[in-house]
Amino acid sequence: MFFSHEYFMNIALSEAETAFEKGEIPVGVVVVLNNKIIAKAHNLTETLNDVTAHAEMQALTSAFHYLGAKYLNDCILYVTLEPCVMCAGALYWAQIGRIVYGASDTNRGYSLVNAALLHPKTEVVKGVLENESNALLKQFFSNLRG
Amino acid sequence: MFFSHEYFMNIALSEAETAFEKGEIPVGVVVVLNNKIIAKAHNLTETLNDVTAHAEMQALTSAFHYLGAKYLNDCILYVTLEPCVMCAGALYWAQIGRIVYGASDTNRGYSLVNAALLHPKTEVVKGVLENESNALLKQFFSNLRG
Repeated sequence: MFFSHEYFMNIALSEAETAFEKGEIPVGVVVVLNNKIIAKAHNLTETLNDVTAHAEMQALTSAFHYLGAKYLNDCILYVTLEPCVMCAGALYWAQIGRIVYGASDTNRGYSLVNAALLHPKTEVVKGVLENESNALLKQFFSNLRG
Repeated sequence: MFFSHEYFMNIALSEAETAFEKGEIPVGVVVVLNNKIIAKAHNLTETLNDVTAHAEMQALTSAFHYLGAKYLNDCILYVTLEPCVMCAGALYWAQIGRIVYGASDTNRGYSLVNAALLHPKTEVVKGVLENESNALLKQFFSNLRG
């Protein structure tokens, strides 16, 4: 059975919703290998009081531990929001096979930097469930402004 | 009493030597606030089987925990090797006050990217104990080639 990008992105969105409920900026990630989820994570910067505790960083560490591998060449990382420079740098070291993201980050997205930050072998797919991801982010920041 | 950049960089070098003894690429970090060390770390990518476990990432997380603060505007991070893109992105989020580094990283240093990856308020000092840091790295890679 084959699962679509939308299938896995919906699970990443569930992770983002969990973050939302905790008062975290709602970003979620799943890492997939051979059509199977091997790691899930959501943003925990407030909970851990650590501005580096992005969903991607935690999902990568989980995936390394699960696989006992240093590189994730055959994995796909689904993330609801475009990775930042830090996360792009981490995904470079991980040699991630593919990144699928939802909403573009027009403030801090890695693609705003005019340089190849990702590994040359990493493929990128963007815009998967973009509207759903953006809606969740907008609701979060709208609630903050109260 | 005032401590020099060389004083703190020597302690970062001790951290790098600890990494060396563990078979890790020898990079060390100390984080200093008001002339006092609040965090120390060394590279643990092999030990933790995690290519994101750079000395800087661990030192930042330690510093956040120690201070209970999300930003490190008044801190100086001393690192024996120029930070990579991932670590520069993390240092951006931390709003680190100053970065002092030893050796330049001519392969993966953040400064090779022709874009402002660090926070605009972050000051950078480079080349402190550069020769000592380079000597340790060269010895490590020379041993590897054995």
